[in-house]
Amino acid sequence: MADDKKLTTRKADFSAWYNEVVLRSELADYSPVRGCMVIRPNGYGIWERMQRTLDDMFKATGHQNAYFPLFIPESFLRKEAEHVEGFAPEVAVVTHAGGKKLEEALIVRPTSETIIYSMFAKWVQSYRDLPLLINQWANVVRWEMRTRLFLRTTEFLWQEGHTAHATHDEAEVEARKMLGVYRDFMEGYIAMPVITGQKTDAERFAGALRTYCVEAMMQDNKALQAGTSHNLGQNFAKAFDLKFQTEAGGTDYAWNTSWGVTTRMVGGLVMTHGDDNGIVVPPLLAPIELVIVPIYRNDEERTNVLEAANRIAGLLGAWDRRESSRLRVHIDARDGMKPGAKYYEWEMRGIPLRLELGPRDLAANQGVLVRRDTRAKRPVSLNTLGEDVAETLSAMQRDMLAAALDRREANSIRTAITYDRFREIMAGDGAFVYAGWCGDPACEAAVKEETKATIRCIPDEEFRSAEAPTTCLRCGGVSTNEALWAKAY
Amino acid sequence: MADDKKLTTRKADFSAWYNEVVLRSELADYSPVRGCMVIRPNGYGIWERMQRTLDDMFKATGHQNAYFPLFIPESFLRKEAEHVEGFAPEVAVVTHAGGKKLEEALIVRPTSETIIYSMFAKWVQSYRDLPLLINQWANVVRWEMRTRLFLRTTEFLWQEGHTAHATHDEAEVEARKMLGVYRDFMEGYIAMPVITGQKTDAERFAGALRTYCVEAMMQDNKALQAGTSHNLGQNFAKAFDLKFQTEAGGTDYAWNTSWGVTTRMVGGLVMTHGDDNGIVVPPLLAPIELVIVPIYRNDEERTNVLEAANRIAGLLGAWDRRESSRLRVHIDARDGMKPGAKYYEWEMRGIPLRLELGPRDLAANQGVLVRRDTRAKRPVSLNTLGEDVAETLSAMQRDMLAAALDRREANSIRTAITYDRFREIMAGDGAFVYAGWCGDPACEAAVKEETKATIRCIPDEEFRSAEAPTTCLRCGGVSTNEALWAKAY
Repeated sequence: MADDKKLTTRKADFSAWYNEVVLRSELADYSPVRGCMVIRPNGYGIWERMQRTLDDMFKATGHQNAYFPLFIPESFLRKEAEHVEGFAPEVAVVTHAGGKKLEEALIVRPTSETIIYSMFAKWVQSYRDLPLLINQWANVVRWEMRTRLFLRTTEFLWQEGHTAHATHDEAEVEARKMLGVYRDFMEGYIAMPVITGQKTDAERFAGALRTYCVEAMMQDNKALQAGTSHNLGQNFAKAFDLKFQTEAGGTDYAWNTSWGVTTRMVGGLVMTHGDDNGIVVPPLLAPIELVIVPIYRNDEERTNVLEAANRIAGLLGAWDRRESSRLRVHIDARDGMKPGAKYYEWEMRGIPLRLELGPRDLAANQGVLVRRDTRAKRPVSLNTLGEDVAETLSAMQRDMLAAALDRREANSIRTAITYDRFREIMAGDGAFVYAGWCGDPACEAAVKEETKATIRCIPDEEFRSAEAPTTCLRCGGVSTNEALWAKAY
Repeated sequence: MADDKKLTTRKADFSAWYNEVVLRSELADYSPVRGCMVIRPNGYGIWERMQRTLDDMFKATGHQNAYFPLFIPESFLRKEAEHVEGFAPEVAVVTHAGGKKLEEALIVRPTSETIIYSMFAKWVQSYRDLPLLINQWANVVRWEMRTRLFLRTTEFLWQEGHTAHATHDEAEVEARKMLGVYRDFMEGYIAMPVITGQKTDAERFAGALRTYCVEAMMQDNKALQAGTSHNLGQNFAKAFDLKFQTEAGGTDYAWNTSWGVTTRMVGGLVMTHGDDNGIVVPPLLAPIELVIVPIYRNDEERTNVLEAANRIAGLLGAWDRRESSRLRVHIDARDGMKPGAKYYEWEMRGIPLRLELGPRDLAANQGVLVRRDTRAKRPVSLNTLGEDVAETLSAMQRDMLAAALDRREANSIRTAITYDRFREIMAGDGAFVYAGWCGDPACEAAVKEETKATIRCIPDEEFRSAEAPTTCLRCGGVSTNEALWAKAY
């Protein structure tokens, strides 16, 4: 954190702000490999908490983890026609290994449907083996032309759920259930509200019957697709001969789903909550919830204040907020660095709470507690610090979600809108626009061409306008669906 | 688990037994990609517990996790002369990506020293930035000619610690400390005793100053190198210009260590504890510690027994054995499957304890508890089941380590031995032989050529014989070191 010059503001250049804040909060760094990033401990600590939480949620819904190979034989990718068309242009290919040219080239997995369903075919014989509910935490590679830290990198980390079911309806329930898990996680933990809905054919996953998604609004009013869940139908089952004996005694192809979220969520967190002083991490995902900054002018004061800080950290760390969950406290005891420089650094890193503690505070049995999101400062008694900190963290978690929701709704348009006005908006500040669509991919493509906005999804019932739009935004024909239009990452 | 025929016994063919038991306990499966395996949920569940435990131990010793790219530019590998020589023959190479031939080929990481120290060079300026203590959980690829499930696979999962220090001595302390962490984990959790020591130059990590290792004895008396820790000296720091300002105001190259353990440990667990009925999982690493098998002959009995099983599982699950640790209990409620078939399957999978529960047991307020390691059966009162199960699990964990230790010592030779006798032993049952070595790599190579045995390590003080051997096992010259000789995986 040697660089003390001010961050570019979000207003001045949101994109420059994003890159600067990711680098300066030490979430990630550029690597010497084109398009690949290094996730530094500050960023990885957030990802670890995301992983742990989601993993618990997956297990609570009956899924088990497994691990499948990094490499996929080229011929496998070709077995599902749409799938290969979607992924072939962006794969990395291993042609040589062990000093020799390979007989068949190996693809570095861009996603694992093909290799996983080929294994499922080996394991599933009867309806008794279903449902098969598997998740994998892994790295994947997609050769992207334009990359952005966390948002779009050549290699990224993710989880991919893969399941097999006896019927279409069971697979549909699973695909929707996991979309719900994603929503619960994103709103409950990232404090990032999302719209759930279904992708149009143009944006559907290559090989899926239906793709569902969660879409979040960033502070520049652009949408971030934060996760997807696919009902794959029997497409992969047919390609990989994943058959089973039905209860009635016949045979049928299994029905599959797949669903995934990635390190992109860290980028979503930054662009949802960050401000001109740095990132802001929601308490539930913060590796450190409270940092204590001791204030002193001489060695004696330093000794006294650090002793008190250690005692407080010990008490808070042992303070049983929720069962088996302790407050995560850090004391910034670095010597030779001014308190102000420390404040600046911890604000940049988005640590939820800061406790400033000096000799005069100690004399008054208090400290000064500063919230990162509102930057509100107030004196707090050391007697009730545990309760106070825990309540403030809960309030902050809640308030961050509410603020993000307010911002999204303030920048959403649900009233009738002309295409001219739509173009103005998309050329200006952007918005989430709910408007009619005739269902013709040509209209969808024309809007993208003319405004860079796309249909993010056909929103689920609860996100639709009170009165459904009657005409298509672009052609004015009869609307078959209300669509959510926005520019997107 | 359709295959009900008996396992090949360990005595008949240890190697065939190993493959069968790994497949039939559903720890792993072969994949369609040469040399790559699929880790199935039973195996991954063990790996997850290994990961979680080690991760806590790494954090408790001050390390933080981060993530570095999968790909390494070919030129990076070439920067450290010994390193490239060691790894170049076994790398997988990406030559094409995004539909084009790459200007510079990318190596799929076989290990990450080069990419990580190139980043450290960017982050470290001053002695104040040291030590830098980083760990990464990742997949790596080494193109192996002969592969074995878990023991040697083309792709494997591991952790690699990478640290930078201001002095040689600090790096040395770190390398030894992490070797100690490995030993604590392997003995405390895998119940697999290890010998610690230093590798000879012939077996040293390519690019290291010194390599330390932990070596375990498998049931066929062969050694398994279960983990390594390297003092890298300044070799990589010089190759990647990892310099820092010293406290005295000069500049110096940093001193590095790296250390790693892999999914191979799961193979070690199997070959340390498995028997002719399947694998045996040490309680602390078992995803399920106790399986309840209900016994019944009709629907009414089934209802009653399952109701009791659920009540017992609920009580055990809530039973606070250690702080924030609950017993992990599973009820095998599958209908249409005989209890005996269930016993067979759970024994194959190595679940530590089984509780058999039938109507007559319930009437007597008891169950029958069966330990997987000893297969000892005894009636237990349901009133004190929590304490009883917890104590039995602790005893089993302890006994498994003791049994493995006894077996190792019974198959270790520390008394003077002729080379002829040594050759007989290595041609027969094998052993860990502690014998003298003159320090000449030629003798080491000749023994390997003639007997397939290698120097596993120069053992640490505590593992050496009471009287140091005076002559070299092979040439009869003056011994400079007591060496541990054995055939190895």
